Amino acid sequence: MYLEKINKPNDIKRINKNHWYDLADEIREFLIESISETGGHLGANLGTVELTMALHLVLDLPTDKIIWDVGHQSYTHKILTGRRDGFSSLRKYGGIAGFPKTSESDCDAFNTGHSSTSISAGLGMAMARTMKGEDNTIVSVIGDGALTGGMAYEALNNAGRANTKFIIILNDNNMSISENVGGVSQYLDNIRTSEKYLELKEGVKDKLSNLNKGNDMIEKIKRAKRNLKSFVVPGMYFEEMGLTYLGPIDGHDINGMVKAFNEAKRIKTPVLVHVLTKKGKGYLPAERHPARFHGAVPFDIETGLPKNKKLKPDYTDVFSTVMCKMGERDPECVAITAAMPDGTGLKRFKSMYPDRFFDVGIAEEHAVTFAAGLAMGGLKPIVCVYSSFLQRAFDQIIHDVCIQNLHVIFAIDRAGLVGSDGETHQGIFDLSYLSAIPNMCVMAPKNKWELSDMIKFAFKYEGPIAIRYPRGTAYDGLSEFRAPIEYGQAEWINKESGICLIAVGSMVKTAVEVREKLKAAGKEVSILNARFVNPIDKELIKEAVKSHSHIVTMEENVLSGGFCERVSSFLVEEGLFVNYTPIAIPDMYVEHGNVDFLKKEIGMDADSIFERIMKDQEGLG
Amino acid sequence: MYLEKINKPNDIKRINKNHWYDLADEIREFLIESISETGGHLGANLGTVELTMALHLVLDLPTDKIIWDVGHQSYTHKILTGRRDGFSSLRKYGGIAGFPKTSESDCDAFNTGHSSTSISAGLGMAMARTMKGEDNTIVSVIGDGALTGGMAYEALNNAGRANTKFIIILNDNNMSISENVGGVSQYLDNIRTSEKYLELKEGVKDKLSNLNKGNDMIEKIKRAKRNLKSFVVPGMYFEEMGLTYLGPIDGHDINGMVKAFNEAKRIKTPVLVHVLTKKGKGYLPAERHPARFHGAVPFDIETGLPKNKKLKPDYTDVFSTVMCKMGERDPECVAITAAMPDGTGLKRFKSMYPDRFFDVGIAEEHAVTFAAGLAMGGLKPIVCVYSSFLQRAFDQIIHDVCIQNLHVIFAIDRAGLVGSDGETHQGIFDLSYLSAIPNMCVMAPKNKWELSDMIKFAFKYEGPIAIRYPRGTAYDGLSEFRAPIEYGQAEWINKESGICLIAVGSMVKTAVEVREKLKAAGKEVSILNARFVNPIDKELIKEAVKSHSHIVTMEENVLSGGFCERVSSFLVEEGLFVNYTPIAIPDMYVEHGNVDFLKKEIGMDADSIFERIMKDQEGLG
Repeated sequence: MYLEKINKPNDIKRINKNHWYDLADEIREFLIESISETGGHLGANLGTVELTMALHLVLDLPTDKIIWDVGHQSYTHKILTGRRDGFSSLRKYGGIAGFPKTSESDCDAFNTGHSSTSISAGLGMAMARTMKGEDNTIVSVIGDGALTGGMAYEALNNAGRANTKFIIILNDNNMSISENVGGVSQYLDNIRTSEKYLELKEGVKDKLSNLNKGNDMIEKIKRAKRNLKSFVVPGMYFEEMGLTYLGPIDGHDINGMVKAFNEAKRIKTPVLVHVLTKKGKGYLPAERHPARFHGAVPFDIETGLPKNKKLKPDYTDVFSTVMCKMGERDPECVAITAAMPDGTGLKRFKSMYPDRFFDVGIAEEHAVTFAAGLAMGGLKPIVCVYSSFLQRAFDQIIHDVCIQNLHVIFAIDRAGLVGSDGETHQGIFDLSYLSAIPNMCVMAPKNKWELSDMIKFAFKYEGPIAIRYPRGTAYDGLSEFRAPIEYGQAEWINKESGICLIAVGSMVKTAVEVREKLKAAGKEVSILNARFVNPIDKELIKEAVKSHSHIVTMEENVLSGGFCERVSSFLVEEGLFVNYTPIAIPDMYVEHGNVDFLKKEIGMDADSIFERIMKDQEGLG
Repeated sequence: MYLEKINKPNDIKRINKNHWYDLADEIREFLIESISETGGHLGANLGTVELTMALHLVLDLPTDKIIWDVGHQSYTHKILTGRRDGFSSLRKYGGIAGFPKTSESDCDAFNTGHSSTSISAGLGMAMARTMKGEDNTIVSVIGDGALTGGMAYEALNNAGRANTKFIIILNDNNMSISENVGGVSQYLDNIRTSEKYLELKEGVKDKLSNLNKGNDMIEKIKRAKRNLKSFVVPGMYFEEMGLTYLGPIDGHDINGMVKAFNEAKRIKTPVLVHVLTKKGKGYLPAERHPARFHGAVPFDIETGLPKNKKLKPDYTDVFSTVMCKMGERDPECVAITAAMPDGTGLKRFKSMYPDRFFDVGIAEEHAVTFAAGLAMGGLKPIVCVYSSFLQRAFDQIIHDVCIQNLHVIFAIDRAGLVGSDGETHQGIFDLSYLSAIPNMCVMAPKNKWELSDMIKFAFKYEGPIAIRYPRGTAYDGLSEFRAPIEYGQAEWINKESGICLIAVGSMVKTAVEVREKLKAAGKEVSILNARFVNPIDKELIKEAVKSHSHIVTMEENVLSGGFCERVSSFLVEEGLFVNYTPIAIPDMYVEHGNVDFLKKEIGMDADSIFERIMKDQEGLG
C-alpha cells in the first residue's frame, strides 16, 4: 500500500518513518515478482533496497546526482523515481533499461553498464559542479567487486586529493558477480568480520616467523609489523588514499544510513561511506545462489528454478565442455577469467583443474597482460571474456600480447548482439578492433562443432588468436561440414553461381535461411563460411567474385572496420569489381531488447536480408 | 677501466666489491656521453645505475628474469648484458632499442614501453615458472609513477594472494615523467620523509576537528583515527594488499640493496622491495630539470642545453598556443592530461589556468571517464594524450563518452610514426579504433593553421570529437588554404583530372611533394585534403572518383580499419569502380628509427609513393 504512493522522485519523503520497512518489504516483493516474470538482475537489487531508500530520503533528485556503478543495482532507484509501471517491459525493446540511462529519466545522472567507472564519472561531475558555483550533492555508489577494477583505483587516487564535496558509497556485499579476489577484497573482509582480524594477525606472524631468523632486516620488519593497528582501524586504506572514511554501516538499517549520508553531505571534501549489504537479501534462493540470481532468467518464485528449461546447449556450454577436454589433454592449458567463471563457462574447468584456473577479479587489463606473462613462461593461456568487456584490454592486447606475438588465446563470448543488457553490452566492435591489430588471428565459428574445432586449432596455433561466438543457443545445423580448420581458409557450404553469401560466424546460420528464400525465388546461391576475419581468405574471395555476379558479406559487427571493409578494400585494391551488398550492424548503439527482434529492427534477420538482396538484384536488371 | 670488463651477462660479478662505485661512476659517465650524442631517456637511467647493478649482482641472467616497467630505465641493464657497443646506434633503425626487447637479448625477459604492465607480466611468468617446476627468480621493477596506473593495482591485488615466489621492486624517485599525483603518491612520500608524518598527522587531526562536533559517529571515527600507526609503519599499504614489504632502502647503496634483494629471494611468497632513488642522479642538469631529461634530445654536457635549436614550432607548440587562447576565450574549457603536461604542451595552460587543468597521473582510463563526468556537468573538457596511450581508454571512449554522445574533445598527439621510441609508441591505430566508434568524429589537420582551426571547431562541436596530429615540426605550407572547417567536409587543394590524391592529415604535405613529382612526369594531379576520417566526405569522394581515373588514398595509419578501408567500402557499396592505390602503413609493428627513414622503409615517403603510383598508372596502360 506504500508502494502505490511512490509515483515520482522524492515521494518517498512523504512516507512516515515508521513505514519505511513496510515500503522496503513491498519493493522487495515487487522486485521478486516482476523479475520472476521478465528476468533481470535480482540479487544486486534485493541487496540495495534500503541503501537506495536512504539515499532518496537524504538527497533531492534530480538536483542531486547518483551514479550507479555497473548500474544493475538501480531497480529500486527506478521504482523510487516513478518508473514502477515500466517494470513489465524491463529490458524489452522500447521498455525501461536494466541500467541507468540519462535518456530514460533526469534522475539517471550518468549511463553505466561496465564496471568501475562511477568514481571517475562522479568526480568529474563534482568538479564541474564546484567550478560552476553550484552546491548539489554528487554520490557514486560502487560495489566491492567493482573495486577490483583498476580504473576505480585510479579514480580513488585522484579523489583523495580533490578539494571538492563528493560522496562515494562503497556497497560491500563481499560478493560481486562471483567470489571476490585479491588483497583489497581480503582487506574489506577484515573490516566486516572482526574474528578474522585475529586470524590475519596470526597469519602474518606465522609468515614472518617462517622467514630466515636472526637476520637484522627481517627482525626490524617483525618489530614494525607487531603493531598491526591498521588492520583493526577500519578504513585506514581509504584514509591513506586521502579520503575521509565513514563506516562500516549496516546497509539494511535505513535510519543508520540516513544519519551517515547526512554526515557525509556536511563534509567539504571527498568521503567514502562503507555500507555492508547482503546480496539477494530477503529472498532465500537468491541469498543462497548469488551467481544464478545475478542475471536471472524468468523463474518460479516458490522454487527459485528457471521457468523455461534450456532445451539446447548454448555456445558457452559447448565451450565449457571443450575446455574440460583441453585441460585433460594439455597440462600447459591454463584459463583466465575476469570475475566471470560462470558466465564464460569456466566453472567446470575450475573445479577440475583449480591450479590452472585464474579468476583475477573485474580486471581485464591485468587478465590479458598476466596471460601474456604466462605465455612467455611457456604455458598456453586462454583468456575467457565477453566481447564488450575485452574492449578494456585493447592496449594490452596490442602492447603485451601481439607486439611480442605471444600464444595467447582469446575466447570471446557474447560477441554480436546480446539483447536485454543493451548498448553497453553489445559485442559489436570486436571484429573491428581486433582485426586492426597486426599478428592477431581472428576467427568465428558457424556452429557448435566448429567452435570446438576452432578452440582446438587455437591451442595448436602459435601466436595471438581470438575466437568470437555469440550469446544463446549454439547452432547445430550444417553438421556435415566439418573440414579441418586451416589457417586463413574459408569454407564452401554451397557452391553455385549468381549470388554468393560470404558469412561470418553466427551469420552462416542466417545465410542458410536467406539462401532458402533466395532459392525459392529462383536464384542460384552459394554460401562461403568465412571462418577467418583476420586474415581474410583472399583466394576464395577472389574465386567467389569471379564466379558470381553478386557478393553479399554478412557479419554481426558494426560496418566500420569490420569484415565488409576488409573485403571491400581487398576488392578495390585488386581491381575486382562486383555488385556488393554489405550486411552488418549499422554504425550505431543498439539498445536493449530481444535479439531476434533487434535483428529485425536493424535489418539483420533473414527476411530483411533476403529483401535487401532481392532489391539489389533488381538494380542489376 | 671497469666498464671495459663488462662484456656479457654476469661479468659484473667479477668486479671486486671495492670497485662497484667506480663502475657505477663509469656507467654514469658513459650514459651521459652517449645520450648527449644520441638523445634518449637520461634521467630515469641515471637514477637506476646502482639498482640495476645490485640486481645483476644478485640474479643469474638470463635464467632469472627482470621485467622493467615502461622500460626506459633499462640502459644500465643493456650495458651489463653486453650491449654497450650498441649505444652509438641507440634508438636508430637497426640499432638497439630504447626499451627492453626480447628479440634483442635473451636477458630482456618481456617487452615494455607503456606504463604499469610489469607486475601483471611478472606475476604471469612467476606462476608459469612455478607450474613448470622451475625455481628461477622473477623480478618486476616498477616506478612510483607507474603505480598511479590502474592495471598495476589490479596486478598488486592479484599478486597479494599468489602463492608463489615473486619480487616487485618499487623504484620510488618521487617523480615519474612529471610530478606525481594522488593519494598513493602522497602515501609513498610519507614513507620517504619522516618529517612529513608529523605534518600529516596534524593535518588529519585538523580535518577531523573541523567536522561537526559532538556527533557520535564522528567522535567514534576520531577516536579510531587517533591511532595513526599505519602512517608510521612503512609499507602497511602493501602488507594490506597481501605482499611482504621490505624497505624503504637507499637505491644508491649497492651493498644495502644486494642484502635486501637476497632477502627477498628467500621469501616464498610475493614480496615488494621499496627502493628510494633520485632521478638524474649524478648529473646536475638532469637532477634539476627532470622533465627535460626524461626523454632528452642530444645535448651539450657542459650546459645541459639541447645541441640543436628547434627552428620551427612542432604541432605540440601550436596546440599549446591554441589552448591558451581557448582557456582565455571560454571559462568552461578544462584540460586533462595523464602525466604528460610537458609532452602534450599543456604546461602553459596549466600555469595560466591552474584550476582548469587536471593531471590525473598515468591513468588514461580515469582521464577519459573523468572527462565524461566533467562534460556531463556542463564543462568542455579536452583530453590531451598520445595516440598509443589512448589505446588504454578504448572502452571508456565507447562506454562513457560516445554512448552518451558527450562533448569530450580528444587532442591526440604523436599520431602516426613517432620514430625513436619504436613499436610500442607508434600512433598508427587511432584512425582504426576511433572510426569504429559510433558518434565519434575524427579529424586530422593538414598544417599548423588547420590544427588551430580544428581545435576551435571541436570546442564548438557538440559531441565526442578527436583531432590527431603527428610528432615533429608543424607543416607551414598551404597557408593559403584556410576554408572554414565544416563537419564532415573535405577540402580541395588542387582540382585537375587524372590522378586524385586523397590525403589525411600529415599526408597532405607528402601529397604536395608527390604531386610535384607526378606533374614533372606529365600527369594531371588533384589533391583532396580529407580533413575528416569519420565521417568521410562521401560527396567529394564521389566527385573525385567521377572526375579522375585513378584514386590514391594516403594515411599515416595501418591499412586495417583505416581511411582507405572506409573509402573502399563506400566505393564498393555505391558501385563506383576506379583504379585505386591505397597508401597506408602496412599491417605490422614498425620498429624504432628516424621517422623519415622509417617512411622510406615502409614505402610511405614521397619517392616511394610516386613510384608506386607510376607503376599503377602503367597498369592502366
